[in-house]
Amino acid sequence: MNIDELAQRAGEWLSGTGPQSDIVISSRVRLARNVAGFPFLSRASESQRKELLRLLCNTISNTPIGSRVTFFEMETAHRLDRQVLVERHLISRQHAGGQGCRGVAVSEEETVSLMVNEEDHLRIQSLRSGLQLGAAWDEVGRLDDAIEAQLDYAYHPRLGYLTACPTNVGTGIRVSVMLHLPALKLADQMHKVFRATRDMHVAVRGLFGEGTEALGDFYQISNQTTLGKSEEEIISAFEGSVIPGIVKYEKRARELLVNERPALLDDKVFRAFGVLENARAMSTEETLALLSHLRMGVNLGRVSEININTINELFVQMQPAHLQKLKGEELTPEQRSVIRAETIRKRLSRDN
Amino acid sequence: MNIDELAQRAGEWLSGTGPQSDIVISSRVRLARNVAGFPFLSRASESQRKELLRLLCNTISNTPIGSRVTFFEMETAHRLDRQVLVERHLISRQHAGGQGCRGVAVSEEETVSLMVNEEDHLRIQSLRSGLQLGAAWDEVGRLDDAIEAQLDYAYHPRLGYLTACPTNVGTGIRVSVMLHLPALKLADQMHKVFRATRDMHVAVRGLFGEGTEALGDFYQISNQTTLGKSEEEIISAFEGSVIPGIVKYEKRARELLVNERPALLDDKVFRAFGVLENARAMSTEETLALLSHLRMGVNLGRVSEININTINELFVQMQPAHLQKLKGEELTPEQRSVIRAETIRKRLSRDN
Repeated sequence: MNIDELAQRAGEWLSGTGPQSDIVISSRVRLARNVAGFPFLSRASESQRKELLRLLCNTISNTPIGSRVTFFEMETAHRLDRQVLVERHLISRQHAGGQGCRGVAVSEEETVSLMVNEEDHLRIQSLRSGLQLGAAWDEVGRLDDAIEAQLDYAYHPRLGYLTACPTNVGTGIRVSVMLHLPALKLADQMHKVFRATRDMHVAVRGLFGEGTEALGDFYQISNQTTLGKSEEEIISAFEGSVIPGIVKYEKRARELLVNERPALLDDKVFRAFGVLENARAMSTEETLALLSHLRMGVNLGRVSEININTINELFVQMQPAHLQKLKGEELTPEQRSVIRAETIRKRLSRDN
Repeated sequence: MNIDELAQRAGEWLSGTGPQSDIVISSRVRLARNVAGFPFLSRASESQRKELLRLLCNTISNTPIGSRVTFFEMETAHRLDRQVLVERHLISRQHAGGQGCRGVAVSEEETVSLMVNEEDHLRIQSLRSGLQLGAAWDEVGRLDDAIEAQLDYAYHPRLGYLTACPTNVGTGIRVSVMLHLPALKLADQMHKVFRATRDMHVAVRGLFGEGTEALGDFYQISNQTTLGKSEEEIISAFEGSVIPGIVKYEKRARELLVNERPALLDDKVFRAFGVLENARAMSTEETLALLSHLRMGVNLGRVSEININTINELFVQMQPAHLQKLKGEELTPEQRSVIRAETIRKRLSRDN
């Protein structure tokens, strides 16, 4: 598997088939780990980074999924290839834009990615469509065990796993769930989510995590504490109350729109549809915003001629790097804008 | 003919059949006249106004078009009926909203309207589609002669016709041409028009004349001086140089769009088309702006499935009062917005 092939297809989490996928786009669990006997990366020499990359790649190869992962080296990878991995949420923006020897191992179905030499020596991530935190946690846990069986992690008997940033110390776990909340946004009720999550020590962020905006009404909900609670407690709080609570808000907002403000709802949905079907130039931001409204329309049965998979695919493939991969060449923002609009028109008319 | 019938159909100037109608919407000539022996309206008593209305209605009835005009009294007319007349440019906003005894005579084809007791005792207007100032002037001149044969106008041997506002003294003529200038607007070149017209003592105004905005890229070009030039000189300057000059700018801007920025052009045109075909609620302002882009698209051959007449009709019939007449009931702005979008969808899909 190479990045070009990856860019053309939809991984598991893009399929939009998981539980509650009308609102829950994806579930992610990641662990931050460091190898005992090596300094944190901020103090590591280039040869220590190289040694870590070699060691961790070997270790990953010897896990049960070792034969089903592909390694990508970031230092030699083309800028577009790194950007594709970011757009698919397989690596962080920091990892793509970083310096020095670093890499990522990605499983066939893209449910697992392991970043080496990002902020920590190792970040183990499982990403699944819909609300599947339990499955994601099982996968990450099994991998973590398989790796720990081969090497020693930096671990402190009282603090737990040691990490480069103190916010990750302890379990090293970050749980994040990507939600699609167009009705709450449309009804101007996102403050309900912000209020509820603040009390639960949960962060609400944009499409690409920390410091990014909520493009296309997508919000990432993630835990803020990694210390003092077990992984299972965090997962079960997310799956049992945090996420269901927000999902309930969004469902209620959708019901209210359908029952009490159908003209407003349809106006948003069909305007988006009309512009997507007709525009000749479109930015990524506008595309996400319009696809978001169309997605809500399809999920609420207001639009029947478009397949939800088409929309889920477009969300990923209309991003800048994916679009350039699709076209097979580097493009200026203006060129992308025209090709993006053209591609969307074609895809939608294929369904329609 | 009553206002309800009027609202349903398209008069001559709405047909969009006149010369250069891709850019020139309509040509209007109006004369301001006052009857000798009566004070200007600002000083007239209600009984004098009544007397004037009676006298001028009789006089109009005795002109060659007398048997083909309908009189509407403004004082007793329903607010919506008055608004329909404004939206068709048959009376001014001031006349619709004014006080006291006043009226308007409208010819069958709506090429002629005669307002009684507006700012002056009499305003004789001819309105025609496309660039037809000569024909409009002939019609107005004939009517003016037929009226003057029956009564004395307030006239000063040196100043000419006396009018309530000094800006009309002399010939009392106002020539205005409504232009559709979407390409100049889109290319951000309207300053060319403003600069050129400033030097020619010509005013550029919005859709409903003085003090109104240029909705939907429509601009009214009119003369500012009525004194020291003959009617024929003013008409011939407009028809021979002022209007052709602006039309040339717009044509050049359209050519540039077609040849050098077709993606920008089509993006505007097809977005407008897509929204018009899909929106579920739409204000008058947005409708005008979108129809303007669609009209340009049809005129430039970018959109072939829509008939230009459909667009011309929608321009008039989607205005608030027309829409309520069409629906046969008074509607709130919210209700209008929904019905407007619905009506536009139906009309466009009939063509498409």
